[in-house]
Formats: sequence, structure tokens, C-alpha cells
Amino acid sequence: MAEESALVTLDDVRAAATRIADRVLRTPLVPAAWGDEAHPLWLKPENLQVIGAFKIRGALNAIGALDEVARARGVVTHSSGNHAQAVALAAREYGLKATIVMPEQAPEVKLDATRALGGEVVLVPPAERESRVAELVAEHGYAYVPPFDHPDIIAGQGTIGLELLADLPDVATVLVPVSGGGLLSGVATAVKALRPNVRVLGCEPELAGDTAESFRLGERRVWPVEQTYRTMADALRVCVGELTWAHIRERVDGVLTVTEDEIAEAVRVLATRSRLVAEPGGAVAVAAYLAHAGELDHGPVVAVVSGGNIDPALLASLLAS
Amino acid sequence: MAEESALVTLDDVRAAATRIADRVLRTPLVPAAWGDEAHPLWLKPENLQVIGAFKIRGALNAIGALDEVARARGVVTHSSGNHAQAVALAAREYGLKATIVMPEQAPEVKLDATRALGGEVVLVPPAERESRVAELVAEHGYAYVPPFDHPDIIAGQGTIGLELLADLPDVATVLVPVSGGGLLSGVATAVKALRPNVRVLGCEPELAGDTAESFRLGERRVWPVEQTYRTMADALRVCVGELTWAHIRERVDGVLTVTEDEIAEAVRVLATRSRLVAEPGGAVAVAAYLAHAGELDHGPVVAVVSGGNIDPALLASLLAS
Repeated sequence: MAEESALVTLDDVRAAATRIADRVLRTPLVPAAWGDEAHPLWLKPENLQVIGAFKIRGALNAIGALDEVARARGVVTHSSGNHAQAVALAAREYGLKATIVMPEQAPEVKLDATRALGGEVVLVPPAERESRVAELVAEHGYAYVPPFDHPDIIAGQGTIGLELLADLPDVATVLVPVSGGGLLSGVATAVKALRPNVRVLGCEPELAGDTAESFRLGERRVWPVEQTYRTMADALRVCVGELTWAHIRERVDGVLTVTEDEIAEAVRVLATRSRLVAEPGGAVAVAAYLAHAGELDHGPVVAVVSGGNIDPALLASLLAS
Repeated sequence: MAEESALVTLDDVRAAATRIADRVLRTPLVPAAWGDEAHPLWLKPENLQVIGAFKIRGALNAIGALDEVARARGVVTHSSGNHAQAVALAAREYGLKATIVMPEQAPEVKLDATRALGGEVVLVPPAERESRVAELVAEHGYAYVPPFDHPDIIAGQGTIGLELLADLPDVATVLVPVSGGGLLSGVATAVKALRPNVRVLGCEPELAGDTAESFRLGERRVWPVEQTYRTMADALRVCVGELTWAHIRERVDGVLTVTEDEIAEAVRVLATRSRLVAEPGGAVAVAAYLAHAGELDHGPVVAVVSGGNIDPALLASLLAS
């Protein structure tokens, strides 16, 4: 199939693993004693990465893949979330200049975190984010580091799949949060290439269920932001991309959705029973486990805890409720 | 020195590492971006063990070292804290019966957690804890698994020292919480044997500062419970033992103390900046880093995050404050 040949390969993911090995935390699989016996649960705590999210993997791989000329010019991206810090830190790791276009109303704490990692922040009205990036690319020759819809990003996130298979060869099911789909695409690429019988499932809030709907219909659906912004899982409000959808359609076995209450409960369980702070979007695979374990194949389950950048006041209120 | 020969050796710790390798989480060193440049900080997150604390290491080693006759009879201990769950889980791992003597007023959540791990809980008035253990040993021939003052326990906790040296060979300082002293004794044994120039420092609440005082005076001091129970770090209210003191006096470079406010701040920083839930006692090495980093040798620091069994309401109130 011609299309298949355009997808990221296992070799791409392996090359990414070699490239980023010394610069990311090799997260362990953490056993969760509160899983059920038919489906023993293991957590892949990507919230423990320095920036609090898996996104450092893709950013390091994409920036590490740039040639010397591009590196000398620097990189640019736009983000109000974890990708901003990922690009800032990855650029600093390689000694590059990073310009991060962020919306004017982004919380001060996120601007500060990006600047603390050496990123030069450019504030714009939200509607001008993409055009300002294009201008900066044209003016300065910066390389654009996209958040998910790029082979190097997908391959970088896929290193999580290699690691979890190495640590738990008899895994039966892998649960992965999905938003833009870079993480799910990468993990499915690695896992399905090495172990086709392992089931890889995306996990998504009902209120931002564009990928679940796309999967049901067999074609990519994009939901309006008025809909996806209803979920508290702010990291999962983006819709699946074109390239990521091509991977997900081919390599993923299904998409599970969860309610807002189920997400809140997963954040609580992770904090109190596994001592991990997860943001709502980072807890959605655990929420899917808690809500849907009975529907899974018998055997060990890995849930990727993809991020932990939760507002402390929100965490406090979830713990107190 | 005759006394020295009675201390746990590096070989004991290595034997423990072999014995428990497949049964504990091999915790990674997690880099903390919020450390200062002269003293880059790494966390050893023992709060991620299934029982939420390092104590599983010593319990597994002590129970694993029992002979077949002793194993057939089962084990007993008394504890109202993390050691209860450690012994229950370690016994289950080896297929032994475990009887855990607990105080009548222990919180229901701790009784339930111990029972959920297969421990048979015997409730007694606090004053009868030790005598009831002695009765059970006499009646049933159970092997007593002490919480800290035993070579097998010390050797088991020392496996943390082997792991952190393997992961960060150029570490300059290791910060370790101290209560009964098993963890500090074990870590110091491993680290000092392999790298005598690495500084190993105990970390203790001011309000339960018996080990700091012992260190200052050069002889073991036991504080009355009315004093040690003032600290919110409930895991650190026990005083240093005789055997552990013998190790600490020989092998530890000093003891740092921290205030209650410094402990609270460390719990907050761990949750919000490193996405780890620590109990107050588990955060005390990080508190010492935050309060005393300027006094440390230049170079990388490892702080052991020893436990994460914090009351959710306390965590919520610390996060909201």
C-alpha cells in the first residue's frame, strides 16, 4: 500500500531511541496494586520527565534530527501547553535558540516555566499564532517544530512503546491518551511492529471524543473548539491530525472514552494509591482502565500517565472532594 | 575494631540486592529541574514502591533470608505504619503467613491496607504491642521481623545506595531521612564502601532531632515520645536504634535538621514541580536540600524520597496553602 510506506517505521522509532537516550528519563513501569487480578496494571509515569510530560521525547528527536545549518538558525513553535516547555528544553539541550509563540492570555506560570528553560517567548493574540510562526520562519529561517503531526515527533513519542515492551514482554493491552495523536501513533507503531497481538487502545474524554468518532466512522473528524474545550483535560482538547490519523487508523485497535467524573477519580487514585501527580489529560488512560477493565483481554495492562502539570488548586480540590 | 566487624558489610548489601531484585521496583533517579546549578538535584522516589515506601526492601530481605523451617511457621511484627504493609506484602511474595500486631486506635485505612495485602491483623492496646509479639513468637514459633534494628533490614534498605551509585557515579552528596535509622545505615554502608568521598547526611525534623543530637554528642540519645510526636512527619517519630546508631556513628558524615514549615514546603515542591506525592517524613531529605543546599559540597545531590503515604486531606491542605 503506497500510503503505508509514508508511515513512521519501527526503525524510525529505534533511531529516535538512540538519539534521545541520554537526554530523557528512562521511566520505569510502576506496578499498581489496585489493579484487578485478571488485568494487572502497570503505569508508565511520563509525568516524571523534567517538563512533567512525555512531549520532551518528540521535541528532542525532532530537534536532534535537524542538520547543522538549521541548528545554527534555531527553532520556533507555538503552544500554550506542554509542547512549549518541551521545545524550550530540547533546544537548550542541543544548544539552540528557541522561540515560542504563546497566546497573550496564557497563564503567567506557563510563560515563566518556558522562559526558565531558556525559551524566548513571543506573545500574540490567539488567532495570530500560526501566522506569526510563519513570519518568524520566513524572517529568520527558524525550523518549525510541530506539536504532533510530524514523523520525527511521532517517532520520538514511540520510544515509550519500545521501553514498555522491554520491561513487560507479556503485556496484553496498552492504554494511551489521545489528543493530537502523536503519542498514540508512536506507541502503536513500536508495539504493533514488535508484538502485533498486543492491543493498543486510545483513551479520550467523551467531551473531546473526536478520535473515538473518527474511529467509529472510519474517517477523520475534527470537532469545533467549543466542544473539545468542555473537558477539564486541557491537554486533550486538540483534534487528531492528518498524519497521526493515518497511523491510528492502521495501527490502533480502538478508542475508549471516559467521563469527567472518571477522569477526576483517576487523578485521585493516582495521587493517593500510586503517589503520582497527574494532570486530567495525563490520567485519562487510567480513567479508561478503571471504567473499562472488564472489557479488556485478560492479561497485563500498561497505562501511560502522560503528564502531571495540574494546577495545584485543582489537585487540592479533587483530593478534598 | 571488634565493633566494626559486627556491622553490615557491602557484601551483605549486595546479597540483599540479589535476593530482592525481582520483587521490588528498581526506582530511577528523577532529575529535579528546580535544584540549584552548583548542586544539581536527583530524587530517588521510593514512594513509588507498591506499599508507598522503601520499607519493602528490608522486609523482603529479612523474610527472604529465613530458612525453610522458619518460613513454614510464618512471621510476626508490630507496626502502625509503613512497616506493617511491608511485612504483609513481603510475606505474601514468599507465600508465608504474616501476623501484624497493630494498636487498637490505628486508622481504619491502615488496617484495611495491611489486610488487603494478606496480613492477619491483631489489635492490642499500644502498651501491649511488644509483649503480644513475644507471646506470638513463643506460642507459634513465628519469626519476628523488626522494623529497623537488624542486619537484614539494614542490608535490604542499603540496596538503595547501590542503585543510586550505579545511576549517578559522580554524586557528591546523598541526603537520607532518618528515624529508626535502618535506611540511613544501609545507604551509608553501601555508599561509603564504594565511594568513601561521597558525603552521606541524615535528615531529620528538628522536633524529632534525636539522631542529630546523638551525632553532636557522640552517643545515642533517645527522646521521649511526647517530644518526637510533635512533628507532622509521623514516619520519623521513632528514635535511632542501637545497631543503627553503631552504623551511623561510623559511616555517616552528619545530620541536618529541618523545621515543620520546611517539611511542608518540600511536600508542596515535590507535588507541584516533580509530580511526586510524598508524606512529610518522605519529604524531609528534600526539605534539607531546600534549606541547606548552600552548605553542601559542590556537585550532584541525591535526595531519597522515602515514602508517600500521606493523608489526602493533609496533602490537599498543604497544596491549597
